[in-house]
Amino acid sequence: MTETITMADAKAIIENQIEELARRNKEPEWMTKIRYKALEAFERAPHKDPVISEEQLLHFIAKPEVKGLPDHIESLDDLPPEMKALLDRLGISEVEQKYIAGLAVQTDTGVIYNQFLQDWAKKGLIVLPTEEAVRKYPDIVKQHFLKLFRADESKLTAYHTAVWNGGIFLYVKEGLKVPFPLHLFFLIQESALAQAPHIIIIAERNTEFHLIEGCTAPILLKHSLHLDMTEAYFHEGAKAQLTVLQNWPEYVHTRPMTRAKVGRGARFINTTVTLGSGKSNIGDPHYWVEEGGHVELNGIILGQKDFYVDLGGRMFLQGPGASGINASKAVIMDESTVVTRGIIEADAPKTKGHISCDALLMSDKAVMETYPGLISRVDDAELSHEAAIGKIREEELFYLMSRGLDEEKATQLIVKGFLDPMLKDIPMEFLVEIRKIIELAVSGGM
Amino acid sequence: MTETITMADAKAIIENQIEELARRNKEPEWMTKIRYKALEAFERAPHKDPVISEEQLLHFIAKPEVKGLPDHIESLDDLPPEMKALLDRLGISEVEQKYIAGLAVQTDTGVIYNQFLQDWAKKGLIVLPTEEAVRKYPDIVKQHFLKLFRADESKLTAYHTAVWNGGIFLYVKEGLKVPFPLHLFFLIQESALAQAPHIIIIAERNTEFHLIEGCTAPILLKHSLHLDMTEAYFHEGAKAQLTVLQNWPEYVHTRPMTRAKVGRGARFINTTVTLGSGKSNIGDPHYWVEEGGHVELNGIILGQKDFYVDLGGRMFLQGPGASGINASKAVIMDESTVVTRGIIEADAPKTKGHISCDALLMSDKAVMETYPGLISRVDDAELSHEAAIGKIREEELFYLMSRGLDEEKATQLIVKGFLDPMLKDIPMEFLVEIRKIIELAVSGGM
Repeated sequence: MTETITMADAKAIIENQIEELARRNKEPEWMTKIRYKALEAFERAPHKDPVISEEQLLHFIAKPEVKGLPDHIESLDDLPPEMKALLDRLGISEVEQKYIAGLAVQTDTGVIYNQFLQDWAKKGLIVLPTEEAVRKYPDIVKQHFLKLFRADESKLTAYHTAVWNGGIFLYVKEGLKVPFPLHLFFLIQESALAQAPHIIIIAERNTEFHLIEGCTAPILLKHSLHLDMTEAYFHEGAKAQLTVLQNWPEYVHTRPMTRAKVGRGARFINTTVTLGSGKSNIGDPHYWVEEGGHVELNGIILGQKDFYVDLGGRMFLQGPGASGINASKAVIMDESTVVTRGIIEADAPKTKGHISCDALLMSDKAVMETYPGLISRVDDAELSHEAAIGKIREEELFYLMSRGLDEEKATQLIVKGFLDPMLKDIPMEFLVEIRKIIELAVSGGM
Repeated sequence: MTETITMADAKAIIENQIEELARRNKEPEWMTKIRYKALEAFERAPHKDPVISEEQLLHFIAKPEVKGLPDHIESLDDLPPEMKALLDRLGISEVEQKYIAGLAVQTDTGVIYNQFLQDWAKKGLIVLPTEEAVRKYPDIVKQHFLKLFRADESKLTAYHTAVWNGGIFLYVKEGLKVPFPLHLFFLIQESALAQAPHIIIIAERNTEFHLIEGCTAPILLKHSLHLDMTEAYFHEGAKAQLTVLQNWPEYVHTRPMTRAKVGRGARFINTTVTLGSGKSNIGDPHYWVEEGGHVELNGIILGQKDFYVDLGGRMFLQGPGASGINASKAVIMDESTVVTRGIIEADAPKTKGHISCDALLMSDKAVMETYPGLISRVDDAELSHEAAIGKIREEELFYLMSRGLDEEKATQLIVKGFLDPMLKDIPMEFLVEIRKIIELAVSGGM
């Protein structure tokens, strides 16, 4: 960081960005007003980030946005070669060809998505860049945009709201069951660029779908900030699954902001695999769960180098019989720090919640902290938590090595056995990819 | 609260108290200096209490101290009749006669203790009012007084340090094993009186003893604040047990401040039974545990009425092989709130820590919150936690009632079964007392 950026500088830059985004997106006035209101909130909103200082944030804001990706990607073959090579290494393109029909790619500044999805639009599955949804479905967007967050909650929410760009608008019509997983990739190409996609998910009653997000950014040179916000609405009886594969390069700070309403009898399973080469990853998703609703937050974290991961997760069990699970498994290497602080609040009868956190520490400089929270305000909720922090048992390692495995393979096998129970809801085909990534990570190949 | 007390008022009052204490205790100058330094710190020290506001604290300070107890209590028969009646109801005097040889009674302003202990002094067991220890053993007290706390940590530590009065100085000479449990009772007689006993425990190498503290204050009219501070030093190989029975009346705020050093191979077991008729009870004991040392913090809480209990407990496992257990069981009735937030930090290899928290919610207005924390900074610590919040299972209740028990008896039996595992280290004789108290509490008889 060589220059000093003042609050006034940052605000002027944000204002320019707002103007440019409004013009480029042919944005209706009501949305641009939301951006300006957020800009107003930015200065007075509290800055709470434990890793990024306010000065750093202003620096991220000041860096100009530069484009790098091709404008159109019709298939994975159109990706830059470095990107393609990584996907190949992970076996993703193979899997794509065989199993994955829905694909949308989020580049620095927009969403490019394939023809295939356009056919499904007729059945009631709308997948659009959020900017386009703003123009095409203003009433729906107005009802759901920034309804689960307030812009002035923090500098990050204010900044995101002012300059959000890209992101997916996913709408699933009542009763529609989507038979294939929908893929969504984020790419960051430019250093010091704050990418702020806004994702809106609306699952009408009795819908079913599985969204897979892959995050990767192979061509970065400097620090970068990824500031996505997801607002999800799962209506009565919806069954939704969100699988997120995060594989950030080591200079990226990510601040996923996710909030979801889980309606009566709805079910939402969110599995996030966070790989360990980012700078920091801090998130605290909120879930409001109504009568009989169920939410599951499964987190797999592989902390490498000096990656700092801080995962929260607040579940508000508001309706009778609502239930929630917040489970995480962390494998922590090098000088990485992983913090988990899930909280479950029971405010209605017959609710159930469970938090679990297991960690394997692979280095004596690795740090694990876990602070689960349980709050019960009714007499017949069942809440529980459990955690275990330890290392790979030497007996286990010796046993496998006595069976002919070398230490690396034995370690991989133990880590796989440790993490596998978390992957129970991932489709078998996608599992192959994740397992490969974990294997690469544990053997130092990522 | 009818009058407004200013900071200047409070400071003037504290200054008067310091002067009176110094004169009454014939205090050496070095101790009075510590008091004045704490008074200086009082104004600027942060006030962190989540229940008592700064205004309330000033009010507690402003209320003058009034004596009520007889000056000398040679046996339990000398206690005021109300006090005696409660002890009888608990069966304590019976137990006393049979099993308990060591007895010290802390009244509002001093310690009155019995002849018996004076004989043990020759063997190296020193039990003295802390004021007397200050005069008799100034070198030992200087080395241990306010060494585990800083006066300016908070308004409460500053206030305590300025006006501490009463408390026990317990010194156990190297190698001495005390064969009988030492009893210590606190009585508060006057309303709005902040009682601030200072307890110093020094267990030299290879000592063994069991200290039992019974806290009760039956003759209160108004709010009161009990602000004790305990500094304990358990040297190499010492085996110490502290059993605390807290039975405060419903107007008392208690702020136990406890810190202990647990030396190489030393073992400290602290079992606290907190009954549910206080106003609030907030404590966060700290334990520093050296190589091979072991500390156990067992908490039993019976929350009644609007009792607010907030129990922390920080264990710093600093030496290889150090271990700690922080276990609590809470039975929460009425509109009581119980919060637990134990933390274990592992900073040395081969350390082990476990936090557990179980709660039975007996009312739909009862609230339980638990926030355990585990921090591991080494790769071969084993840390774990578990918690379960729920209610008495109806099947269990129905089963017992089908066997001929009425609901009250069945509930008592289930609560007893729930709490009993926590009482494993309490001598059988004393257990009788505690069980009786729990039974009375659950059936609404306290």
